[in-house]
Amino acid sequence: MKVEALFHRAESPFAHPLDARRLHVRLRTKRGDVKRCEAHYADRYDPPEMSEIVPMVRTGSDAWFDYWEGVIPAPHRRVRYAFYLEDENGDSLWYGESGFSSDRREAGVFQYPYIHEEHLHSAPDWFLDSVVYQIFPERFMNGDPTNDPEHTEEWSVSARPRPDSFYGGDLQGVIRQLPYLKELGINALYLTPIFASPSNHKYDTTDYTRIDPHFGDRETLKELVSRAHQSGIRVILDAVFNHCGYGFFAFQDVIKKGRASRYWDWFHIKSGPVMTTPKPNYETFAQNVWTMPKLRTDHHEVREYLLDVAAEWTRETGIDGWRLDVANEVDHAFWRAFRERIRLINPSAVIIGEVWHDAGPWLKGDQFDSVMNYPFREAVLDFAARGRISGRELDARLTRIRMTVPEPAHRALLNLLGSHDTERVRTACGGDDRRLRLAVLLLMTYTGVPMIYYGDEVGMEGGNDPDCRRPMIWDADEQDRDLLAYYRLLIAIRRGSAAMRRGETRTWWVDPDGGGYAFFRRWQEETVGVVLHNGDTSRTFTLDARPFDHAEELVDAMTGEVFAVRNGTVTVALGPFQGRVLRLK
Amino acid sequence: MKVEALFHRAESPFAHPLDARRLHVRLRTKRGDVKRCEAHYADRYDPPEMSEIVPMVRTGSDAWFDYWEGVIPAPHRRVRYAFYLEDENGDSLWYGESGFSSDRREAGVFQYPYIHEEHLHSAPDWFLDSVVYQIFPERFMNGDPTNDPEHTEEWSVSARPRPDSFYGGDLQGVIRQLPYLKELGINALYLTPIFASPSNHKYDTTDYTRIDPHFGDRETLKELVSRAHQSGIRVILDAVFNHCGYGFFAFQDVIKKGRASRYWDWFHIKSGPVMTTPKPNYETFAQNVWTMPKLRTDHHEVREYLLDVAAEWTRETGIDGWRLDVANEVDHAFWRAFRERIRLINPSAVIIGEVWHDAGPWLKGDQFDSVMNYPFREAVLDFAARGRISGRELDARLTRIRMTVPEPAHRALLNLLGSHDTERVRTACGGDDRRLRLAVLLLMTYTGVPMIYYGDEVGMEGGNDPDCRRPMIWDADEQDRDLLAYYRLLIAIRRGSAAMRRGETRTWWVDPDGGGYAFFRRWQEETVGVVLHNGDTSRTFTLDARPFDHAEELVDAMTGEVFAVRNGTVTVALGPFQGRVLRLK
Repeated sequence: MKVEALFHRAESPFAHPLDARRLHVRLRTKRGDVKRCEAHYADRYDPPEMSEIVPMVRTGSDAWFDYWEGVIPAPHRRVRYAFYLEDENGDSLWYGESGFSSDRREAGVFQYPYIHEEHLHSAPDWFLDSVVYQIFPERFMNGDPTNDPEHTEEWSVSARPRPDSFYGGDLQGVIRQLPYLKELGINALYLTPIFASPSNHKYDTTDYTRIDPHFGDRETLKELVSRAHQSGIRVILDAVFNHCGYGFFAFQDVIKKGRASRYWDWFHIKSGPVMTTPKPNYETFAQNVWTMPKLRTDHHEVREYLLDVAAEWTRETGIDGWRLDVANEVDHAFWRAFRERIRLINPSAVIIGEVWHDAGPWLKGDQFDSVMNYPFREAVLDFAARGRISGRELDARLTRIRMTVPEPAHRALLNLLGSHDTERVRTACGGDDRRLRLAVLLLMTYTGVPMIYYGDEVGMEGGNDPDCRRPMIWDADEQDRDLLAYYRLLIAIRRGSAAMRRGETRTWWVDPDGGGYAFFRRWQEETVGVVLHNGDTSRTFTLDARPFDHAEELVDAMTGEVFAVRNGTVTVALGPFQGRVLRLK
Repeated sequence: MKVEALFHRAESPFAHPLDARRLHVRLRTKRGDVKRCEAHYADRYDPPEMSEIVPMVRTGSDAWFDYWEGVIPAPHRRVRYAFYLEDENGDSLWYGESGFSSDRREAGVFQYPYIHEEHLHSAPDWFLDSVVYQIFPERFMNGDPTNDPEHTEEWSVSARPRPDSFYGGDLQGVIRQLPYLKELGINALYLTPIFASPSNHKYDTTDYTRIDPHFGDRETLKELVSRAHQSGIRVILDAVFNHCGYGFFAFQDVIKKGRASRYWDWFHIKSGPVMTTPKPNYETFAQNVWTMPKLRTDHHEVREYLLDVAAEWTRETGIDGWRLDVANEVDHAFWRAFRERIRLINPSAVIIGEVWHDAGPWLKGDQFDSVMNYPFREAVLDFAARGRISGRELDARLTRIRMTVPEPAHRALLNLLGSHDTERVRTACGGDDRRLRLAVLLLMTYTGVPMIYYGDEVGMEGGNDPDCRRPMIWDADEQDRDLLAYYRLLIAIRRGSAAMRRGETRTWWVDPDGGGYAFFRRWQEETVGVVLHNGDTSRTFTLDARPFDHAEELVDAMTGEVFAVRNGTVTVALGPFQGRVLRLK
């Protein structure tokens, strides 16, 4: 046995409670090496010789490793456990905190001393059932021309924004388009920042207590939330707490008074007086962005100020959650306090962090429910848009993402194909609609909560910021209506399927020859299979029909085509870059 | 290269800040597989092609793995990095968050987004310089016979305590023996619980606000602390917050009023009314210990009550820290709040958790400074007392302990050979003084803060609780005076050596044939080497003298014997079970 490949620790994401009485554990082994695996467990205070057994199941693989998962019952919330492994040759081994040994005692035991509430995930149910639509308010719709900024540019299909362009989009515009959004089928909105700021993106907040006057006011936001709720649509706002804008009152006070300012300690200033050139002498977002001074979020006053702001907006407007900007550079203690404050006001508020990399440290249950899943975007684009990876590699990439976060957090990851910070998905696909549709199919069917970036559904294109922030195309003649219908269909299929919203995902089949891939999702009695391939030829795949039990035929939920099950297999034909969603008739 | 053996995550204990501008990283590889390793790093916002290089150094091994460590500068507190590895055959590989690849970009990068204060360890300097002495107050000295409990038994060498015995030990007794402790050379006391409780061990607190009347009162404690401080001795108390005693006012209220009690939610009661037989219908410490109801430490009121208690004692008496009972079964949020409260009152208070297993989750900087290092005890006893493991395995075991905790926490671990919860070290050694001395030598010379369990230094014996809690032997004729002198000598050597108190530990030599082992410790210009073996024959080891640079001879700090350096090596003779502490003359 390749013992050197084994890895486990009694800490998230390798051990994580599912609820107060069940511990989910994961074990890494060398790919293909281990044939059988069990977790032997007991209460921590049971005598050493006592133990029960649960099987560990191989639930995923990548090029190097197999990943095994199991669920250990913990009636007293306290667990000790060790893994028992067997390989093809019948060799066996124990793995515990003391290491690897053929002798059970020598291997020792892992300990999960007590399951506390703080580590239980509680992403709200409504969020798991959501399809989210991201709006960059300055570019979605100009609903109130009376509040337009000076030098507002023309809203047109050919508009190409510069970093400082304004087009007059506002909250009234979002309100106006709620019927459009409802018809699209989404049921949650994520708005990038709307608080007072001189920029079009508003990630440099001047006043956290005020809606930007070019977007509307407090009443407009309340109306938006209230009308959205009437349409069954939730509203998530963007909290920019890593840094503020240059005009933020506390920073202005420091500029005026230097060290004498009572807000001096709210920032990281190397030495006074404050200077912005040649380089700012204070910490900023990213490198030397003088318009965005970094806030000292671990300072008691700063924390209370920002938490009060978030609490107040949550209480007053009835919003349904927050997306947290540059969340990975703010201290964990701040986010724990944020969660406590917000959840006290709205127990079903969702909390989503912006973390582009391994987000495990923020998804232990006491901070975020979800993060923006950029690694998912990379995997899907590499497969569907860029054709860089095979079905096997896609499976491996998705599996590795899953293994970085606890299982309950995995179901809540905010999957996306693009955002205000990336090129748009259609552009990433080189304008190839077949590739685009394949990517959207994956977005809408895989585990996690799908998010659509405004305009993607009507075929908008755009390179990196600021090009991805063009004004929304509202002229029906300029919209890709076929694509819009495709989005609507997939959203409807997802929202109608508990398996897609809640179910676990398991690999169904991996193409030995390249670009084919199939997975299925299951929730209670419902199973849905997804089959796809990223090649420009037609292909026929024969898949094991066991996930569908005794089905006689499967139907493609998108086209209505029927595939018969024969001798326990189902043969599925796919056109170039096609994907199918299969379920019982 | 055996890529399947590689392991790293950008999270403690694999990545941990040493201070605000330096990130310590660790990488696991297959033993003997990798020849060279580097960390390539940059600021997270630098262009992808930019990076600097720091070498990774192989600092330890066990039977399966090599462990590499490096320190990445983080001038802006934000780091991205990847590992570059080469094996004997010249094959090379990149390892980053995306996996393993010969292509640097494919491997991706690990990200440590921002070094926050919350993750900086700050064990107080005085603690790193301490030798701690653990006192079980009921058994150390009866300094005030007027406060003895009823049925106090005779204090004698032949006393064999039962679970419910009382011997009359008290705080006045500790005060009386401060000169003895000062002469012994220790400079910190850890007292097991002293708050009001019906038991002799007082782990079932009846009243957290009162000193147990059989031990003294508030004034006695203040006098003890004040007199100890005058003698240069710090005082650490025991906080039992996982559970209370049956007589605790809130639990009594619940017994009286059932669900109507305002303290109902302070406990985990399955259904009212409270019952203790046949099994308690409430959660307790361990299994069905009805005298110790588990407290709901994640309940706001419970948290505030207990934190107020700890804060008040800290403020009022000037104690120097807390040892936290059953710390691993209390929620992390409680301990973070505990740290904040206590450190606000006394910024140099030490916080030590009781965690017997992998303590990584509690040693991330925001909870404990230290834990009671029971895995160290196991390793040392297996080597010295039980002769079960070789020098190589001892080295492996100590290395594995080191790798479970961040480097700054490793220096602060509270090493021990026994406590009120284990058999005594002399008993574990089967009464063999040579083995005992070898174990004590390791305790006093290895990384971490050594703790002596009262009476071990005069040769007391005793099996598991309650036998390990015999009354202290004060009769000089009954004390092992040679052993006492040995302890005093080693304590003096340690306290006189910055290398032993603060220095890093590195393996010097591992015996290919069995029981020999040597390590050295270094701090600034000072190097100390420790050589030992666990066999009953005399041995001669020839060691590389390079750690001592251009030394001509080394001297045994304990015996004064001199060993010449010849041709870059030093040959050291050891008697059966002997150890030596070598340094420059």
